Amino acid sequence: MAEQKLTGADALVSTLADNGLDACFANPGTSEMHLVTALDRETRIKSVLCLFEGVATGAADGYARIAGKPAMTLLHLGAGYLNGGANVHNAKRAHTPMINVIGDHAVDHRKYDAPLNSDIIGLAGPNSVWIKSADTVKSTGKLAAEAFAASFGPVSGPVSLILPADSAWEEGGERGGKAQLPQMRQASAELIAEAKEAIGKAKAPVILINGTALTEQGLAAAARLKAAGLRVITDTFYWKMRRGAGVFAPDRMQYFAEGAMSDLEGADLMLVAGTSLPAAFFAYPGKPSLLVPEGCKTMNLGGADTDSAKTLLALADAMGAADIADPMPLRKPDAPKGELNAGAVGASVARHMPENAIVSDDGVSNSLPVFLSTMTAEPHDWMMLTGGAIGQGLPLALGAAVAAPDRKVIALTGDGAGMYTNQALWSMVREGADVTTIVFVNHTYRILNIELHRTGAGNPGPTAKDMLAIGEPDIDWVSLAESMGVEATAVTTAEDFDEAFEKAMKSSGPKLIAAIVPG
Amino acid sequence: MAEQKLTGADALVSTLADNGLDACFANPGTSEMHLVTALDRETRIKSVLCLFEGVATGAADGYARIAGKPAMTLLHLGAGYLNGGANVHNAKRAHTPMINVIGDHAVDHRKYDAPLNSDIIGLAGPNSVWIKSADTVKSTGKLAAEAFAASFGPVSGPVSLILPADSAWEEGGERGGKAQLPQMRQASAELIAEAKEAIGKAKAPVILINGTALTEQGLAAAARLKAAGLRVITDTFYWKMRRGAGVFAPDRMQYFAEGAMSDLEGADLMLVAGTSLPAAFFAYPGKPSLLVPEGCKTMNLGGADTDSAKTLLALADAMGAADIADPMPLRKPDAPKGELNAGAVGASVARHMPENAIVSDDGVSNSLPVFLSTMTAEPHDWMMLTGGAIGQGLPLALGAAVAAPDRKVIALTGDGAGMYTNQALWSMVREGADVTTIVFVNHTYRILNIELHRTGAGNPGPTAKDMLAIGEPDIDWVSLAESMGVEATAVTTAEDFDEAFEKAMKSSGPKLIAAIVPG
Repeated sequence: MAEQKLTGADALVSTLADNGLDACFANPGTSEMHLVTALDRETRIKSVLCLFEGVATGAADGYARIAGKPAMTLLHLGAGYLNGGANVHNAKRAHTPMINVIGDHAVDHRKYDAPLNSDIIGLAGPNSVWIKSADTVKSTGKLAAEAFAASFGPVSGPVSLILPADSAWEEGGERGGKAQLPQMRQASAELIAEAKEAIGKAKAPVILINGTALTEQGLAAAARLKAAGLRVITDTFYWKMRRGAGVFAPDRMQYFAEGAMSDLEGADLMLVAGTSLPAAFFAYPGKPSLLVPEGCKTMNLGGADTDSAKTLLALADAMGAADIADPMPLRKPDAPKGELNAGAVGASVARHMPENAIVSDDGVSNSLPVFLSTMTAEPHDWMMLTGGAIGQGLPLALGAAVAAPDRKVIALTGDGAGMYTNQALWSMVREGADVTTIVFVNHTYRILNIELHRTGAGNPGPTAKDMLAIGEPDIDWVSLAESMGVEATAVTTAEDFDEAFEKAMKSSGPKLIAAIVPG
Repeated sequence: MAEQKLTGADALVSTLADNGLDACFANPGTSEMHLVTALDRETRIKSVLCLFEGVATGAADGYARIAGKPAMTLLHLGAGYLNGGANVHNAKRAHTPMINVIGDHAVDHRKYDAPLNSDIIGLAGPNSVWIKSADTVKSTGKLAAEAFAASFGPVSGPVSLILPADSAWEEGGERGGKAQLPQMRQASAELIAEAKEAIGKAKAPVILINGTALTEQGLAAAARLKAAGLRVITDTFYWKMRRGAGVFAPDRMQYFAEGAMSDLEGADLMLVAGTSLPAAFFAYPGKPSLLVPEGCKTMNLGGADTDSAKTLLALADAMGAADIADPMPLRKPDAPKGELNAGAVGASVARHMPENAIVSDDGVSNSLPVFLSTMTAEPHDWMMLTGGAIGQGLPLALGAAVAAPDRKVIALTGDGAGMYTNQALWSMVREGADVTTIVFVNHTYRILNIELHRTGAGNPGPTAKDMLAIGEPDIDWVSLAESMGVEATAVTTAEDFDEAFEKAMKSSGPKLIAAIVPG
């Protein structure tokens, strides 16, 4: 196609493809029809249809965490963005680059305030690290390149590019060229020297890490720091970490504030790298919000905009830390027996998970035992829910599987969490995604039963109990999965789970195991 | 409980109950635990758990359309609001009063920017007709009363009341008392006289109506206007209309702009009452956005803030229009035979729908035949998707059934639309809601296949075709419904549909019929 015949939609998608973008998670409507046919012509981009926008945004997040570059989403005006908004929130908290292309009414049509009209800049602004509207056909390519770059920083995250229908359909689009990507900041030599000095004076120094520090390189530096006497702790929830046999395993910040505070007792210096000072997930009456022991000094070595792997390396070098790897051994548990619970699931996952698998963790109160047991499993990547908006696990797994079709993906989800975006199962089948989903079926929002007591909200009466229990009716996850074409089984014993999970690991394609566990 | 011991959560819910609010559609999280136990103590409010926030907001919309007063929703911070946001958008377009209570972090906790923190005022502001945050425990009751009143106007719609966790848990809440509700505006006598004069001079005057004009009273006045020579047309999509035998049936604005324009040809005066000038749902290349014939004069008799039923009555009186009722007869079609399609579904619905039923219409391209055939069915209420964000039909039906447990509710949904909020089926079972859901299963976004051609986006290639087809895998709606406890059947012939629908009308409780229709 000759350059001068490009529509705005063509210019937008081709510019993104020129920059290396190759995946689009879409839920289109009438105002996006020209984008749909432009995607048809732009064969470098693979389009994946999602039946709900929360699946599209969650999948784009999972894609980027694994591929290391953003995917685009295709959303239908403000309402489509809202449907995808919670997983955009999660992605912003993971600092995942993502390009949300939000179709809008033609510019001249906006003033009539037709039914689907809304203030998209207003709605989408708060969770976008960059937002603009391509109100002329000429601007489409240029803004696509700008959006691509902006998704990488200064702080990486979701960007929103609004595309009015007329900018999409008119000819006269121009490609925006290759975007200059921003570089992450680096901690200065002065700051590193200051940190080294503070560590030298401290009795019990700790460093809290996230970001690039959780890559293989970053963790190698972290192991050296630990050997030099610095306790290394990760945020409770992080975007992705390399784990398992052969990899250094830092400690993990505890979820509950009281646990975290007792774990940190005695620490007199807290450095943070690639994150910020730790705060409790929620506030509780009479409990502290900031999880820093009294009298503990703090030092910021750079937040999400800073390459924390390089920070750790520079600090280890400055301290003259020995090159000690401290890798986890490969150690697989015995086959679990008896009652099925999260511990038994964890044992099976650790036993059968193949090398280089990817775990998407939205398992809420049942995750921790699986997390702990896999510390000595085959090396793998572990992705977490960073923004607290449950319903991310299945979409994230879908996106990861599209990014890495040769790797096994394991999705952990609570039954409450899984219901938010159950439509992801359909896209898994359509794409032949190699995802094994484990649903912890306990027919309750178990975490809320715990939190009800922790917040001191009083003894629950029948209405309150009803609000936390998702039985009556029990959800039949096998029927639900099969309704969308996913091969599924429900198991109630550790032995049956182990057999079903091993089978899933030895075959390919979407599977679901409903793990019936205590509530 | 003594007044001085009220928590902020108690004050909030009790104030709403004092104002007559009696239903809450909830999806709580940790920050809402004190609201949950306050709802436990406030027995005047019935709480309905929803597994996804889009179900909660859509149900609150359906509830208010039938009950004539707002329900509250209970949402978990900004992310919870986002999940419910599309159906809040739809409710705003229906001008439905709704009180979204959005839990937030404790005020002092916000500054730590914990994972679920977000700019709730920013996110929720655009689709709220009123939004405030109760940042002190003392303000909770007062703001609850203010929120209740604001949901009724000046223009009625969804309001957002943000409740920080500490305002909820602290004692010292005070009830806000009974709110003074705003009155709807009335068209002035001068305006009515002006309208009468313009009608007298016009050859082919039409009046476009929405709002209270669609109640039994409003339609009675509309019938008189028609008898006096004024063509009466409703908006294409409206909040609710009384219809069927014994009720006057106005014309309906066509959905597609070219149809609407050809239908309006010759009109030389367009009055609007309870709405605004008609605009095309979407813009199309080279087609007009405003659906007013060239040279046609327009006159605004008041928008959504004005009591359009009173406008019609005043106009009919001023014109000396005779008191002619022009009711639709009761006429039920014969049993449909042969291939199942939307026309056959419409015949069965018209045959078997009981008196005073409620229809929730999210049937997209398959709705019109059912709409037309029921014009002479038993008298009923018909609720529409007003904001264009599909996925409203099932939640709306759930809310209507909670508002009117003694009335039969019929939900029409496309298969694409139904997937957005399929979790509504679970709440229907839990509540024993008397909803019969008809899913038009054609395995495609059929409307988009039509729109693709209308927008001139070109011939679809394989990727574009894939983006519009939701087969591969086909969704098995019977399994899906049964997974959440709904009795379901799939039918492929008109005879089988008629039998299944008649059976559903003669029994009670949630049912689902998957109507397999051509794509």
